[in-house]
Amino acid sequence: MNILIIGAGGMVGRKLTAALVKNRTLAGREIARIDLVDVAAPDLPQAQDIDIRALAADISDPTTAPRLIADRPDMIFHLAAIVSGEAELDFEKGYAINLDGTRYLFEAIRLAGKDSPYCPRVVLTSSIAVFGAPFPDRIGDEFFQTPRTSYGTQKAMCELLLSDYSRRGFFDGIGIRLPTICIRPGAPNKAASGFFSSILREPLAGKEAVLPVDESARHWHASPRAAVNFLIHAAQLDTALLGARRNLNMPGLSATVGEQIEALRRVAGEKAVGLIRREPDAMIVEMVDGWAKDFDASRALSLGFSAESSFDEIIGIHIEDELGGELPQ
Amino acid sequence: MNILIIGAGGMVGRKLTAALVKNRTLAGREIARIDLVDVAAPDLPQAQDIDIRALAADISDPTTAPRLIADRPDMIFHLAAIVSGEAELDFEKGYAINLDGTRYLFEAIRLAGKDSPYCPRVVLTSSIAVFGAPFPDRIGDEFFQTPRTSYGTQKAMCELLLSDYSRRGFFDGIGIRLPTICIRPGAPNKAASGFFSSILREPLAGKEAVLPVDESARHWHASPRAAVNFLIHAAQLDTALLGARRNLNMPGLSATVGEQIEALRRVAGEKAVGLIRREPDAMIVEMVDGWAKDFDASRALSLGFSAESSFDEIIGIHIEDELGGELPQ
Repeated sequence: MNILIIGAGGMVGRKLTAALVKNRTLAGREIARIDLVDVAAPDLPQAQDIDIRALAADISDPTTAPRLIADRPDMIFHLAAIVSGEAELDFEKGYAINLDGTRYLFEAIRLAGKDSPYCPRVVLTSSIAVFGAPFPDRIGDEFFQTPRTSYGTQKAMCELLLSDYSRRGFFDGIGIRLPTICIRPGAPNKAASGFFSSILREPLAGKEAVLPVDESARHWHASPRAAVNFLIHAAQLDTALLGARRNLNMPGLSATVGEQIEALRRVAGEKAVGLIRREPDAMIVEMVDGWAKDFDASRALSLGFSAESSFDEIIGIHIEDELGGELPQ
Repeated sequence: MNILIIGAGGMVGRKLTAALVKNRTLAGREIARIDLVDVAAPDLPQAQDIDIRALAADISDPTTAPRLIADRPDMIFHLAAIVSGEAELDFEKGYAINLDGTRYLFEAIRLAGKDSPYCPRVVLTSSIAVFGAPFPDRIGDEFFQTPRTSYGTQKAMCELLLSDYSRRGFFDGIGIRLPTICIRPGAPNKAASGFFSSILREPLAGKEAVLPVDESARHWHASPRAAVNFLIHAAQLDTALLGARRNLNMPGLSATVGEQIEALRRVAGEKAVGLIRREPDAMIVEMVDGWAKDFDASRALSLGFSAESSFDEIIGIHIEDELGGELPQ
């Protein structure tokens, strides 16, 4: 089993790589090789018996994709994208990387299959940004895609391509729409959604965090560990079960900021909660109000995808995976 | 008011041109010029006081779109596409014309607006092929797009682009998903849906027609006249009413083949009905079974779009518009 991970340098890509290296098998086959690709060459993890390589490449360059699949990987995880904020600020770059980059990859696979049969599994990370307000209280599996960002538009277009290329037999694709990943490790970033993580991560580390919205704000979450499990499950799933509908809302946890804070209180006490500073930001309030709040992800659940059911669990995963299993004193 | 019609040589394009020439105004403004574009130069209709030009152009050539909009038309009807069957047979040509051709047009408009403000109305014809079975009994306005053809995929992708370019203010777009057009005038063609028209058109002209499916087969129809009215209404609509959701299911008539035949009997008598020869075709039966059968097009209806409410009416329109107002003796 040879694996290609595009976008391997990001948080989810690094955790996916670590999980694959640890598991040493995927879909019942031994992993022989993993190619890690990102705009800067990803770090090479230690791995016994797996040939791991790292490559810096720009997927918006049409010559990149044919090189990436020249050795015909069996499994391709396509996680690479520029994020929502950047795709909104730089219209051309967003389409070049998020749409054209994906299409070049799909085309390279299709054209490789013309020479001799080639039909890899392709796992694409998409996003709940393919949906745009107004929403029903819970978004069902058959709700339409009306993105309100260029990023969401690009992801929805890639999902359509993935379905068509799969239907045509050019590859065996599955697209998974990730919830907001929480608790995102690392330093606070400028993403408008960053506070969902930082109001937990920073107090757990004894640091202050800023809350820009009301405690009643509701959002859709899953842990980094759940995201990696989604990817691995998608890679191993019998895609015959998907029929022609190859893009799935992943399960997640719908919770208010207030429920996040209550969980923090239970896990880390009043002192941690006291580190959250309320600084309402009208622009962030408005953006968050336009985001999906809750899903009925029945289809993914019935296909065996699973996520957390409480923020206590999500905080516990962060403590286990990022803080060595215990809170700093 | 200067108008550009891309795909002006097709049946709907010719009827739209004729209606505009007859009306002489659009959206309350006098029509000064109409540019007709298609892969072969469209016929020039007679028109007083309107400067009409015809041009042959290949929209899959990236240099075409900038030329087409060089004079900054106020209104652009984009009807050009290769049809479902051809897009399925020729994968590359379908994407080149239906997706890339549309994107080149949208990009040309965006880039023209960088030099000096330019924000034309763009009316895009899309199709109910953006939907794919299984369906609810009636497809609502918020049902998701899971096309089962490359044509439907390309149209759904163009719809997403149209919404994003409109949201960004690059143009003022509206996409309309046409029902199957019935009764399509002219000679029988090879489209799998052709029989819906030919089982009426041919007997009305005293000729035999072949029915390849059962009388219980249900489908979604609108007349050529309704299609032209959709386009003109879309061109004149206050798009502020659309919000961010700029693609609409057009209204139509859901009817079974049996209901079509009953209407033919009422209008043209038993002798006409006797000209329908039943020749079941398993492949067509299966294709038709996968097509959308009925819509709840509430949103378009509330925005003032309207279509026929009976097949008697649809047949009457064909007799008026194509047969000079009376049945041949």
